[in-house]
Amino acid sequence: MARIAFGSFGDSFSVGSIKAYLSEFIATLLFVFAGVGSAIAYSKLTTDAALDPAGLVAVAVAHAFALFVGVAIAANISGGHLNPAVTFGLAVGGNITILTGIFYWIAQCLGSIVACLLLHLVTNGKSVPTHGVASGMNAFEGVVMEIVITFGLVYTVYATAADPKKGNLGIIAPIAIGFVVGANILAAGPFSGGSMNPARSFGPAVVSGDFSQNWIYWLGPLIGGGLAGLVYGQIFIGPYSAAPSSDDFA
Amino acid sequence: MARIAFGSFGDSFSVGSIKAYLSEFIATLLFVFAGVGSAIAYSKLTTDAALDPAGLVAVAVAHAFALFVGVAIAANISGGHLNPAVTFGLAVGGNITILTGIFYWIAQCLGSIVACLLLHLVTNGKSVPTHGVASGMNAFEGVVMEIVITFGLVYTVYATAADPKKGNLGIIAPIAIGFVVGANILAAGPFSGGSMNPARSFGPAVVSGDFSQNWIYWLGPLIGGGLAGLVYGQIFIGPYSAAPSSDDFA
Amino acid sequence: MARIAFGSFGDSFSVGSIKAYLSEFIATLLFVFAGVGSAIAYSKLTTDAALDPAGLVAVAVAHAFALFVGVAIAANISGGHLNPAVTFGLAVGGNITILTGIFYWIAQCLGSIVACLLLHLVTNGKSVPTHGVASGMNAFEGVVMEIVITFGLVYTVYATAADPKKGNLGIIAPIAIGFVVGANILAAGPFSGGSMNPARSFGPAVVSGDFSQNWIYWLGPLIGGGLAGLVYGQIFIGPYSAAPSSDDFA
Amino acid sequence: MARIAFGSFGDSFSVGSIKAYLSEFIATLLFVFAGVGSAIAYSKLTTDAALDPAGLVAVAVAHAFALFVGVAIAANISGGHLNPAVTFGLAVGGNITILTGIFYWIAQCLGSIVACLLLHLVTNGKSVPTHGVASGMNAFEGVVMEIVITFGLVYTVYATAADPKKGNLGIIAPIAIGFVVGANILAAGPFSGGSMNPARSFGPAVVSGDFSQNWIYWLGPLIGGGLAGLVYGQIFIGPYSAAPSSDDFA
Repeated sequence: MARIAFGSFGDSFSVGSIKAYLSEFIATLLFVFAGVGSAIAYSKLTTDAALDPAGLVAVAVAHAFALFVGVAIAANISGGHLNPAVTFGLAVGGNITILTGIFYWIAQCLGSIVACLLLHLVTNGKSVPTHGVASGMNAFEGVVMEIVITFGLVYTVYATAADPKKGNLGIIAPIAIGFVVGANILAAGPFSGGSMNPARSFGPAVVSGDFSQNWIYWLGPLIGGGLAGLVYGQIFIGPYSAAPSSDDFA
Repeated sequence: MARIAFGSFGDSFSVGSIKAYLSEFIATLLFVFAGVGSAIAYSKLTTDAALDPAGLVAVAVAHAFALFVGVAIAANISGGHLNPAVTFGLAVGGNITILTGIFYWIAQCLGSIVACLLLHLVTNGKSVPTHGVASGMNAFEGVVMEIVITFGLVYTVYATAADPKKGNLGIIAPIAIGFVVGANILAAGPFSGGSMNPARSFGPAVVSGDFSQNWIYWLGPLIGGGLAGLVYGQIFIGPYSAAPSSDDFA
Repeated sequence: MARIAFGSFGDSFSVGSIKAYLSEFIATLLFVFAGVGSAIAYSKLTTDAALDPAGLVAVAVAHAFALFVGVAIAANISGGHLNPAVTFGLAVGGNITILTGIFYWIAQCLGSIVACLLLHLVTNGKSVPTHGVASGMNAFEGVVMEIVITFGLVYTVYATAADPKKGNLGIIAPIAIGFVVGANILAAGPFSGGSMNPARSFGPAVVSGDFSQNWIYWLGPLIGGGLAGLVYGQIFIGPYSAAPSSDDFA
Repeated sequence: MARIAFGSFGDSFSVGSIKAYLSEFIATLLFVFAGVGSAIAYSKLTTDAALDPAGLVAVAVAHAFALFVGVAIAANISGGHLNPAVTFGLAVGGNITILTGIFYWIAQCLGSIVACLLLHLVTNGKSVPTHGVASGMNAFEGVVMEIVITFGLVYTVYATAADPKKGNLGIIAPIAIGFVVGANILAAGPFSGGSMNPARSFGPAVVSGDFSQNWIYWLGPLIGGGLAGLVYGQIFIGPYSAAPSSDDFA
């Protein structure tokens, strides 16, 4: 926990930081547009039928491909978070300051909201579906599901992208980050929706005006992402940072 | 905007340039053959039924895989555009001259036309489907949809391939470029068709003789691609080119 | 066979080894959660219908993506086995000692069990499906099927990851390892289930209490993985290790 | 055409060459097992129904993933052809001698036959489906379809793997080679079957005893592969080999 740093306003308002916020805004917008768009596309094709296995594949693949691309296009500018749970998990490991992280959150949520507004505009007013747990499930199950799958996502971010010892894994990191989300949606989609991303859930909530279950998709992902940051940062990166001079890695 | 250069006839008719046009022609032909072919294949399997979610997955994956491959096989020869909107977006950022870009457009459109003629020949005269907005949508919505998704495509081209600071991202750039199109088709397919590519839409229009909505797939993608070139070129590449000597990067 | 080494307790209880066991535990847990979860998700969406082709795609893609990611996130810490058949196949080629391998097996099986317990918890008590051969097939056919496909998996691990001459193939090794499992599930899923992994089959057996066919998924994969280690290790790596000094490679 | 070389018996029977034949045999066996197996799996799940779009996705993805992996695991030993049309196309460009190529063909065909025998054994005697043109199509259309799509495959092999100027593209070459086959099956599957590979078609013909249309899958792919070798070899590699000293590249 000692890795967490608040940060200075000067750093958070540098030209580079502002470009980073813009990068997060654009990449999250494009990711959410394709992801939420694929769910609306399913409704369009099936006249609002309940999700079936082919539709689950469509939605999972759309999220996997779009998140891979979103992480890739932002990687060199902002690090490619696109997700408040990733930003929080990286803050827990000392990879981003609290203050800069807050601006990342704002950029991500704004990107998601604008994506959903655009979708509403271009689909002739189709409703934007929000995340919620399936009927027959309770909120606790939804939170735990989101904790587990977001832990997997943020652990992947650490192992393939944030770990200074990642080596060549960094080349395929954006693919791994996108595809872990695709795999997890194929498992969690019919239960919790498989969000792993508070911003991904927040945009549809704002545009549809339905915040009834939105807290689940903040609580679960933030706990899961924070846990991943603790576990990976303390156990797998930690020992190499024990000496003061190794702070350079962070 | 100052980056745009007209170019000289000598450069545009060099041996290397002519090879580049041939490369664009072949790669676009192979991409459109698989992409449009997957739509015809769906009609064949379902006796011309309306698109369903499994069919959308088939069409989106065909485009994603084929565009990834098409970009890869042309990357070292012509840069792997396969798309007038990509060429235009790169011209806005000064990565290709206007004159050479016009020959790229011609090569791409010819590749698409030949692909559709071949498809008509080998499928025993199945009709070649053209892009058009879904019933219940208007042309404006189609144009905006194409603007947004083409912005995403060309932004991806910039971030992973054209940016001189791309680093190792360049290794997976063809995959990212193919997969952003796959993701966007999963979202936009049932609404605007998800073209992002005037040449992709032009070949079917020529072979079927139906140009009724073809303007949508020039206007939307060119605006979206041009915007991406402006935003990425000016904001994320721009500052590094401020000094005259840095023109070498362009 | 001379490559097999028992190993020392000191090596198997070093800090690095214990981190490796934890890495295998976490990565296998995340892989099995997504893989088995995708099978439960299919049951949820279809109210326990028999598997159809769209469901097979969903399950195969979930395993492919999740194993790719699981191998990637464990690659630099434990080598990314996630599978007792892989560990055994690598032990046959002398890439891991017997003693350390036993702890890998324990970590992998525990990860699978915990994943299945979590799935049972968060899906409101849905039953966890176990592997078994299809009706109309016999156990011998199931064993041979698992031998062939696990041979393919462990051969892939050798060629892309364990071979000292792998070169740049190592960069895409986790993708290849995940995708060979995806391809094999698309072929073997409706017959033997397409496990290739005793730990993947063991967790559901423990949580459901049904061990009736579990032996098939130990016998087949261990034979297939061991054969791959023999063939690849002796024929394709072997000759380069003939001189005593080349033991450094192992 | 001057690039074609017959080769010497000494070279074709070296230890390295025999390992290469074994590598082709194993990799083709594993590829065909998953590819043909996915078609049998569809029959099993649907009780021999006609192919539908979800089934086409399953078959295309199985071939794409399995060929990617097959090429990867053989790349460093035999070059990863797995396909007589690829071997022929590379012979046209002088990348392999005629004599060694003949042994590659034998290894590939044997691998395919053994794969189909194994499938027949482990699926409780399910019939092994052969390639053939769809009803309503004629053989000429099938041949032209196979020419076009095999041209795309072998052109991809040249651009990403055989071209001495490929650079970093070589890292993702196996993925591109697998995925071009996946894309082409999504287009050609319901028409010609989308073989692109005489060995892939020959194994099922041998095991089922049905050679009625097998010639189509030798003629089409060999013409398409040979054309790709001519075009890519002469135009895109050729000029760099004009000087005698540049033979080193071949």
